[in-house]
Amino acid sequence: MALLFLSSPERAAVWAPIFEAAGEEMEIGEAAVSDPSAITHILCWQPPKDISRYPNLRVLISSGAGVDQMPTLPEGVQLSRTVAKGIEEMVRDWVVMAALMLHRNMPIYLAQAARGDWRAHMTRGTGFTRVGVMGLGRIGKLAARTLADLGFQVAGWSRSGARVEGIETFGEADLEAFLGRTDLLVCLLPLTPRTQGLMDAAFLARLPRGAMLAHAGRGAQLDMTALRHALDEGQISAAMLDVTDPEPLPQDHWAWGDPRVIVTPHIASETDHAEGAAHALNVIRATREGREIPGLVDPLRGY
Amino acid sequence: MALLFLSSPERAAVWAPIFEAAGEEMEIGEAAVSDPSAITHILCWQPPKDISRYPNLRVLISSGAGVDQMPTLPEGVQLSRTVAKGIEEMVRDWVVMAALMLHRNMPIYLAQAARGDWRAHMTRGTGFTRVGVMGLGRIGKLAARTLADLGFQVAGWSRSGARVEGIETFGEADLEAFLGRTDLLVCLLPLTPRTQGLMDAAFLARLPRGAMLAHAGRGAQLDMTALRHALDEGQISAAMLDVTDPEPLPQDHWAWGDPRVIVTPHIASETDHAEGAAHALNVIRATREGREIPGLVDPLRGY
Repeated sequence: MALLFLSSPERAAVWAPIFEAAGEEMEIGEAAVSDPSAITHILCWQPPKDISRYPNLRVLISSGAGVDQMPTLPEGVQLSRTVAKGIEEMVRDWVVMAALMLHRNMPIYLAQAARGDWRAHMTRGTGFTRVGVMGLGRIGKLAARTLADLGFQVAGWSRSGARVEGIETFGEADLEAFLGRTDLLVCLLPLTPRTQGLMDAAFLARLPRGAMLAHAGRGAQLDMTALRHALDEGQISAAMLDVTDPEPLPQDHWAWGDPRVIVTPHIASETDHAEGAAHALNVIRATREGREIPGLVDPLRGY
Repeated sequence: MALLFLSSPERAAVWAPIFEAAGEEMEIGEAAVSDPSAITHILCWQPPKDISRYPNLRVLISSGAGVDQMPTLPEGVQLSRTVAKGIEEMVRDWVVMAALMLHRNMPIYLAQAARGDWRAHMTRGTGFTRVGVMGLGRIGKLAARTLADLGFQVAGWSRSGARVEGIETFGEADLEAFLGRTDLLVCLLPLTPRTQGLMDAAFLARLPRGAMLAHAGRGAQLDMTALRHALDEGQISAAMLDVTDPEPLPQDHWAWGDPRVIVTPHIASETDHAEGAAHALNVIRATREGREIPGLVDPLRGY
């Protein structure tokens, strides 16, 4: 069995010694593969263009928790996602950081700092800001609870109307009411046909005037042109985006230079390198021993 | 009785209607005072140059919790600090934001964003960062507990060796050990003769190489030239400063333009405007009724 590793050089530098110590084979990059039939596992975020090149592929391993970027797999190839311990906490930390940065006017202070302008603006406690968390899976629930612990007025929304202890929750039919009470919207939704393009002009218009957005779902959920118009009209006052459309965000994209927008390069949910390598090793061993592979994705549910 | 109000126009706009509704007199700015003998209370952060101008002054009210900027007061004049409900939480929120921004490489990502550069760097969980909180008063204890709840490895330091439940604490004699285990230093110390200039070159050199600094104590505690050298040498990798020396930071100061430093204009601890006004009204009423004034500062202890 051999793993084909398709990720960053920084990550490869951590993985290589771990695989060597474990006595498992790992090829770095498609160019390094002399015999494609030897490849049984592929680790990647973006999948290779032609997966049929690897006739003995057994498992495609997503380097993160998301699998919406993965193609339909040939019969007999399984899909595993890396649900590293600490992934929920890492996304939660980005969300807490983003919520505090928006609540505490960091886009304004960063723009002022760029011109050496020392000027304070009115600050209120977290209790004056109504945060709305869209997506109440494990990450959304954890983020909602932590934001509530910090004193924000938190509500949650999910299609299924999932409950979170101590948090007001809204379901499918109550989207408008949820948006109407949300000063700071946190998006943590998975990408599905129903969430694709969800945050368009009409959606943003349902938020209170001057609302803020922290987006750590998937880029294709947000119409960035609609966001720009909403910013120009004052409907949205500021946004923090960890996911964009497209990704990577092109160097000349308006969002980079807009003082009301802070972009981070899809780093909310980066798998810890060592944990990711441990997961891949566990998948390889489970394959060899015929056990159910860790992080197995049900292709019908999509997660 | 009449209050002389010496603070921002933004704050005055909130206070004026509250004082009017309460039937209390308030003059805004020294220029507006036609009869200095009518002034019994002064609200300010920076005190007026010549306090002897007001012969019937009874109480000087600091608009914040700090009073180190106040002069020695004439006999019979009391000092009150505004300990608004929510002040501790507000500073804690800044500290949590700053700690997450440093831990999650925001100085690097903001510098990259300025040139449209989408590039992720290795991220680790909070458990890999050892935070050290200097100053274990109410704010420091709250900040330490919240940071520990987020998974950081937190220790605390105070001269008195104060204890915080569940947090390792260090006292006066253990400063070197405390600094040696601290990747991310949070300063929340009060300004006293012993903390003035505390963070100098020798102090910064005791931190592990590449350490980070979040400073929300007082500007005069940090030698900013020493910070700059430590940044240039790689001893300190990044800093978030809510307090600076001097304040306001001059427009042409190096710290504004340094991508490794993020400056906010002393906003960690802004008193909620409405709460600050309520405190001042309580002080005025207590003075009139001969009760002990709220927020009374013991001039010998300094807090």
